[in-house]
Amino acid sequence: MLKPNLHYRELHDSYLFARIAERTAAYLEAHPGQRLLRMGIGDVSQPLCPAVIRALHAAVEDQADRERFQGYQPECGAPFFRETVAAHYARRGVAVRPEEVFVSSGASDELGHILDLFDPASPALIPEPAYPAYVDANVMTGRPIRHLPTGPEAGFLPEPEAAGDAGLVYLCSPNNPTGAVLDRSLLRRWVDWANRSGAVLLFDAAYEAFVRDPALPRSIFEIEGARHCAIEICSLSKTAGFTGTRLGYTLIPLELERSGMNLNAMWVRNRTTRSNGVSYILQRGGAAVFSEEAQAQVHKTLDIYKKNAKIIADTLHRLGLFYTGGRNAPYVWMRCPEPYGSWEFFDLLLRNIQVVGTPGEGFGASGAGYFRFSAFGSPEDTEEAMARLERLLN
Amino acid sequence: MLKPNLHYRELHDSYLFARIAERTAAYLEAHPGQRLLRMGIGDVSQPLCPAVIRALHAAVEDQADRERFQGYQPECGAPFFRETVAAHYARRGVAVRPEEVFVSSGASDELGHILDLFDPASPALIPEPAYPAYVDANVMTGRPIRHLPTGPEAGFLPEPEAAGDAGLVYLCSPNNPTGAVLDRSLLRRWVDWANRSGAVLLFDAAYEAFVRDPALPRSIFEIEGARHCAIEICSLSKTAGFTGTRLGYTLIPLELERSGMNLNAMWVRNRTTRSNGVSYILQRGGAAVFSEEAQAQVHKTLDIYKKNAKIIADTLHRLGLFYTGGRNAPYVWMRCPEPYGSWEFFDLLLRNIQVVGTPGEGFGASGAGYFRFSAFGSPEDTEEAMARLERLLN
Repeated sequence: MLKPNLHYRELHDSYLFARIAERTAAYLEAHPGQRLLRMGIGDVSQPLCPAVIRALHAAVEDQADRERFQGYQPECGAPFFRETVAAHYARRGVAVRPEEVFVSSGASDELGHILDLFDPASPALIPEPAYPAYVDANVMTGRPIRHLPTGPEAGFLPEPEAAGDAGLVYLCSPNNPTGAVLDRSLLRRWVDWANRSGAVLLFDAAYEAFVRDPALPRSIFEIEGARHCAIEICSLSKTAGFTGTRLGYTLIPLELERSGMNLNAMWVRNRTTRSNGVSYILQRGGAAVFSEEAQAQVHKTLDIYKKNAKIIADTLHRLGLFYTGGRNAPYVWMRCPEPYGSWEFFDLLLRNIQVVGTPGEGFGASGAGYFRFSAFGSPEDTEEAMARLERLLN
Repeated sequence: MLKPNLHYRELHDSYLFARIAERTAAYLEAHPGQRLLRMGIGDVSQPLCPAVIRALHAAVEDQADRERFQGYQPECGAPFFRETVAAHYARRGVAVRPEEVFVSSGASDELGHILDLFDPASPALIPEPAYPAYVDANVMTGRPIRHLPTGPEAGFLPEPEAAGDAGLVYLCSPNNPTGAVLDRSLLRRWVDWANRSGAVLLFDAAYEAFVRDPALPRSIFEIEGARHCAIEICSLSKTAGFTGTRLGYTLIPLELERSGMNLNAMWVRNRTTRSNGVSYILQRGGAAVFSEEAQAQVHKTLDIYKKNAKIIADTLHRLGLFYTGGRNAPYVWMRCPEPYGSWEFFDLLLRNIQVVGTPGEGFGASGAGYFRFSAFGSPEDTEEAMARLERLLN
């Protein structure tokens, strides 16, 4: 008799973004023809850059050619991809070896897969507000979860002094949803704490490309000691518009060990057993992101999003509303005006100005009363949405 | 203090195909310039068909265009992909609804992911010889495993009478590595047994496209009652040459429930939480496989592999060696000639005729003394390898 995974019963009925999609669909069904301005889920609006498109076409052509055809790729990543990423880190002054780079189908998939490396009884610490999949992926495995609330008084930044005896700690910087960025000194305190306590830091760097302030770290491996306590999970979704194309990578240092087991070697074993590699076509497209030509193109697109973020932040500023983020991050995190709660504010915007945002409550209890705007929309939609918001709240 | 997943200690040092790759690399290093005839890992040799290439290029172009650009895809699959697969099954006389079709990054990945639906204490039954990832993926989760040996006396086919009280049963047909195919009556006995015992059958249909005999089932859902006890895991790797391009799909019937929990709904929850969907480009390429034009092209390629299989089988027949498979399957499974064991025969072929096959022992204890040839090489390599084998053993 098969027993299903009963932990699924402990999950909420539906996942945050699925719930938003359902509410939005219901509204559209009741109001056919309405066009929504979507600033909710962090999906990008700008196409892939020409250098990446060219690489994707060339890879498709390889798959049509008998001599150049590519079958199974090495499970941990094609050598050209791993070397390209390592060289990219080297240019930024971070020493990473190709065999420490693992290709992935994207950060959100990887954040679940990587949990397989850890005993499900080792507790996870999740600073909140947080990307809700951090919690749900752990609930599904039955792992004990400790929520570490953060608030406006500390700029929504988590402090290691409050970490207790966690085994696995999620750090997302620039943060989704608050846009807060851990500076070098705070990140060093986390690294030191982890090396003392034996914890492992899961550093979610999905938004690192939005950091322009050179004083702020973009990789946890800029911090001394991190090679003994951290895994970095990266994505091309926001960096290069790969949300629908899918590709990411994960860095696991060769030095990272716990209980005498090497986590890099364990991940090699995991990948060679549980995966047959990631698409050659996508790896070619992904590797192209790191060329000089593509980097220039990608940065132009990032500038569009950064300008959107500024438009959002300036609007909230004029409205006299409290907010964080939007500077070295693509998200702006605002406190809902009185008397609205997160979901009430969501409904207010959907019904009155046809703007879709994300209720802060969906990112954990400490997000209640807050709301997230994404800067990944088109400039026109962002300007229009903020003009409507200003009219609505004024 | 983080505790790693200690189950990894119970794994062998390296995964079968990684081990073969290492031995082969060592041989090549010692004998530079040698060209190997690779008939080991089941990787295809023929390029993608023109209709798929065209669809991939068109999808890449969509990603270059601001209006047609595709961001995050629905996590369970793009509607166009799910509908195309359901229509393909309908044409074969099998009723499958689009919401029962889940896109995947490939069958080997999915075979690991899907285990998340089941309590790790529910035992798995693995008929052997078997694809080694079945075992290793379960060892990693600490699930109790029962090995069900099969042998030449029953055509390497597993019988439900020997199943005991397993929770989860792997059935691979056409079988990797033996090429054995479960006929309708045997498959019906497994379905009836599972419905009586409450087990769930994981039907690995990766090689279904090689079944040409209309009397043999290609999908478990051709069998009455299977909708209450089976999940079917499918791949485009062998069907359409997607080993390096990556795409597959999984069928979970809406009726499938255990302990009052609906497995289709659980998988929706899993995908919406643990994945951000599969690449739009790959789903477009995958959907194109099912067009009339592509099916004709794909069948021409399959004919090449089927002809290879016949060349291998005919050679073994002439040599008077016992073998199975190769008729409705791309693998030929032979008994090693005296006095060779599986790995000794592997070394014999590598060193003397530069042919790489797969030692049967790698598929479980009951594979000891056997050897697998794959028919996925080029016709030239296959003919040359078999000519060399004939010279060596005569």
